[in-house]
Amino acid sequence: MNINAQQINDMEARYRASFMNSLGGYKSVVLIGTKSLNGTSNLAIFNSLFHLGANPPLCAFIVRPDVSPRHTLQNILETKYYTINHIHEGIYKNAHQTAARYGADVSEFNEVNLTEEYFEGHDVPFVQESNLKFICEFQQKIDLEINGTIMVIGQIKEIILPEQCIGKDGFIDLELAGTITCSGLDSYHKTEKIGRLTYAKPNTWPENI
Amino acid sequence: MNINAQQINDMEARYRASFMNSLGGYKSVVLIGTKSLNGTSNLAIFNSLFHLGANPPLCAFIVRPDVSPRHTLQNILETKYYTINHIHEGIYKNAHQTAARYGADVSEFNEVNLTEEYFEGHDVPFVQESNLKFICEFQQKIDLEINGTIMVIGQIKEIILPEQCIGKDGFIDLELAGTITCSGLDSYHKTEKIGRLTYAKPNTWPENI
Repeated sequence: MNINAQQINDMEARYRASFMNSLGGYKSVVLIGTKSLNGTSNLAIFNSLFHLGANPPLCAFIVRPDVSPRHTLQNILETKYYTINHIHEGIYKNAHQTAARYGADVSEFNEVNLTEEYFEGHDVPFVQESNLKFICEFQQKIDLEINGTIMVIGQIKEIILPEQCIGKDGFIDLELAGTITCSGLDSYHKTEKIGRLTYAKPNTWPENI
Repeated sequence: MNINAQQINDMEARYRASFMNSLGGYKSVVLIGTKSLNGTSNLAIFNSLFHLGANPPLCAFIVRPDVSPRHTLQNILETKYYTINHIHEGIYKNAHQTAARYGADVSEFNEVNLTEEYFEGHDVPFVQESNLKFICEFQQKIDLEINGTIMVIGQIKEIILPEQCIGKDGFIDLELAGTITCSGLDSYHKTEKIGRLTYAKPNTWPENI
């Protein structure tokens, strides 16, 4: 079926949110851990993380204007560091539950039964139950005037992952790490590898690696 | 294992590219169709599409500075319209092959054996073999000075998808549409639903919808 601009415009607000959040395809879904200046840890689920570059190693995510209060953004701006933690099937309900609107003096770690973990030199909480996680240093905030969203860019500083997940060429086997993906606002999925393909060149056809 | 900033810095360039592209988790992978001012159609695979907002319906993707020539970006800036086409398992090799460096006067549709499809009122090519696809109108280009990448924001104008994939609440069943996901630079995956969860609220626990 075809859905035109007028029909998009006529969609009920929550229907449109669910529809448009599905339309872009599968998304990265991660838990972002921060700590406030007064020492309260915070954990929040985000489905808008994306790779921005490998050298320097940068990633970014989008903060929505209608999600208030925005403890994650405030903590990042004040303390400059945050952790990004992949989610596996065993903790997806806990991860989802971090989206509930808890007060600023409450740690989501306690509320959703996930465990804070700290590594030497960093006073920012990781999720102990996560298999693949890394710490980012805040680099830049870009206000996207077109719709009031905010893009947060960070540099990847230190990574914790199972050694056996790293291939000889640097590829990380996310299935071995148990990483899941999401679609829409609330749907979680595990994956099954179809194949890796050789570098694309004219006049040849990609083959499975 | 832990990998620190110095070890990241010491990674060989291609190793780091593969590693960092994997680190963010699963990604949306789509084919972007455009047409040049002189009428040559273009098709290119992108793994950086992300949802930016539902009202107005906006999505964005990242163009890398080291991918040259950048026909997709040039065509979008000149003609203002482009199509975004989901990829299913039956066309993932064709989709991957669009990344080969073909000349500006060559249509990737022909080279990779995918079929151009046009809908009334739009002179921009869709991928006929794609099950879920939509047309975007260019809104804004943001040059990200931190690493020279370019963010392209578009508004979703018209959508073509199988009616049975749309749930009553607007959720699109991407598995029913056959949409696949990717990781790293070259790995493709199908998905298996774990569950959809109810809206998160304090003092309750999410349940499967």
